[in-house]
Amino acid sequence: MNHIELPYAVIEIEVPFHDVDVMEVVWHGHYSKYFELARCKLFDQIDYNYPQMKASGFSWPVIDLRVRYIHSARFGQRLTVSAEVTEWEHRLRIDYRIFDTLTGQRIAKGHTSQVAVNMAKSELCLASPAVLLEKLKITL
Amino acid sequence: MNHIELPYAVIEIEVPFHDVDVMEVVWHGHYSKYFELARCKLFDQIDYNYPQMKASGFSWPVIDLRVRYIHSARFGQRLTVSAEVTEWEHRLRIDYRIFDTLTGQRIAKGHTSQVAVNMAKSELCLASPAVLLEKLKITL
Amino acid sequence: MNHIELPYAVIEIEVPFHDVDVMEVVWHGHYSKYFELARCKLFDQIDYNYPQMKASGFSWPVIDLRVRYIHSARFGQRLTVSAEVTEWEHRLRIDYRIFDTLTGQRIAKGHTSQVAVNMAKSELCLASPAVLLEKLKITL
Amino acid sequence: MNHIELPYAVIEIEVPFHDVDVMEVVWHGHYSKYFELARCKLFDQIDYNYPQMKASGFSWPVIDLRVRYIHSARFGQRLTVSAEVTEWEHRLRIDYRIFDTLTGQRIAKGHTSQVAVNMAKSELCLASPAVLLEKLKITL
Repeated sequence: MNHIELPYAVIEIEVPFHDVDVMEVVWHGHYSKYFELARCKLFDQIDYNYPQMKASGFSWPVIDLRVRYIHSARFGQRLTVSAEVTEWEHRLRIDYRIFDTLTGQRIAKGHTSQVAVNMAKSELCLASPAVLLEKLKITL
Repeated sequence: MNHIELPYAVIEIEVPFHDVDVMEVVWHGHYSKYFELARCKLFDQIDYNYPQMKASGFSWPVIDLRVRYIHSARFGQRLTVSAEVTEWEHRLRIDYRIFDTLTGQRIAKGHTSQVAVNMAKSELCLASPAVLLEKLKITL
Repeated sequence: MNHIELPYAVIEIEVPFHDVDVMEVVWHGHYSKYFELARCKLFDQIDYNYPQMKASGFSWPVIDLRVRYIHSARFGQRLTVSAEVTEWEHRLRIDYRIFDTLTGQRIAKGHTSQVAVNMAKSELCLASPAVLLEKLKITL
Repeated sequence: MNHIELPYAVIEIEVPFHDVDVMEVVWHGHYSKYFELARCKLFDQIDYNYPQMKASGFSWPVIDLRVRYIHSARFGQRLTVSAEVTEWEHRLRIDYRIFDTLTGQRIAKGHTSQVAVNMAKSELCLASPAVLLEKLKITL
């Protein structure tokens, strides 16, 4: 049995003023943006970001989003966001962790799931298309 | 045993241009805004929206967000968003459903969980404070 | 000489929690969304919103945005936003006014300018195309 | 007469997926966020960002925003944003330029104006308070 090393990406962000709410913490809905920044970095690393997805004939809508908030984040705080592929056979699941860059304090974690849609047929794919496996360098 | 009728709110929105992405559908991260609009309507109905929360000495940070996407939504589409309190003892959980106002087609569902934080003590409350139960008209 | 009555639209919004910043007022960058909501209502009224623009072969990128802030707006405040076509020959200029729905207090004003781009030729139009004049019911 | 060298800051960003609209370009309203990122970098450089402003007893609401769009920006494009103080006596005006990091192509330019508000008195300052001049290292 082969060990499969699945892609992993890490980014750093600094909390912008416009993401902070009246409670002086990042408004909870903005974390999906931070997840996306890490996810797109991961997609860049495997050469399968939105333009390449489109060129491959598939769109990959998000069908599930989960965010668990552990500690609040504040204006100017430096955050590290990791994204890691954890499922790929029937859907593409990516798990995220956000922590304070300086102290390592955990801020949030979560995941997104995406499924392939054959754009020509407007048809949901029950199994991930070959192109994803190629990009993930998975040989069955 | 008393039957408790928990608060419920419904709003209608029209998908704005600035919420739609290159795939011509609402970007998945914006649904947390739609949930919040319904949640704040619900909070208004029970007279315990953010200003009243603050006045009561408690903040209610979101600790969990889940969104499940069923059908994509498009620019100008009229959506109905419902919010319903489903837990209140140890945390405030609200469940949401989004559907097409005209056809009834299901668009998304999800939930948020919030916990009370005693602002003076910066202390998480393990049980919901009395003020929430009063607002929910729950008599134990 | 004919008097030309140019289109005018009015919407009402309620300031959402997620638009308010740490100063407890609407973050200045969100006003472009409020302008857009009124602009799209106006475009609906003349049957020339983004889908019809695309179908007509023209895109209308915003080339200029101005916002002047008069009084700050707060969470839950009801605002009225008006949009009015003020130029159409070489570019489409729309002027906006935002005021408190209940008191009439002026909150902000501003404008956007858009120019037509012939999408097939990727070419900027130096004069507004006939389709805009038809939609505006302007006869020269 | 002294020559006054006014603060200047530069940042780099990469256009995120969630800022791009159906026309496959950055939605015009997001440029105020890019301006703010450069402005906050500038404020950090002079040690007078939002926390220090608050500590000094003044808030600095934006009273004017202007954005002129020259070329559209696309998903993943690397942009350089500069911010430069151009007025300080009665209001704080900052001018911005956005250009493509690799090619130097001009994308947008604009400015914001902010005025000092004495938070204790809720009073607009007709002249910039001494603390701004100190931070800008201006000696009259």
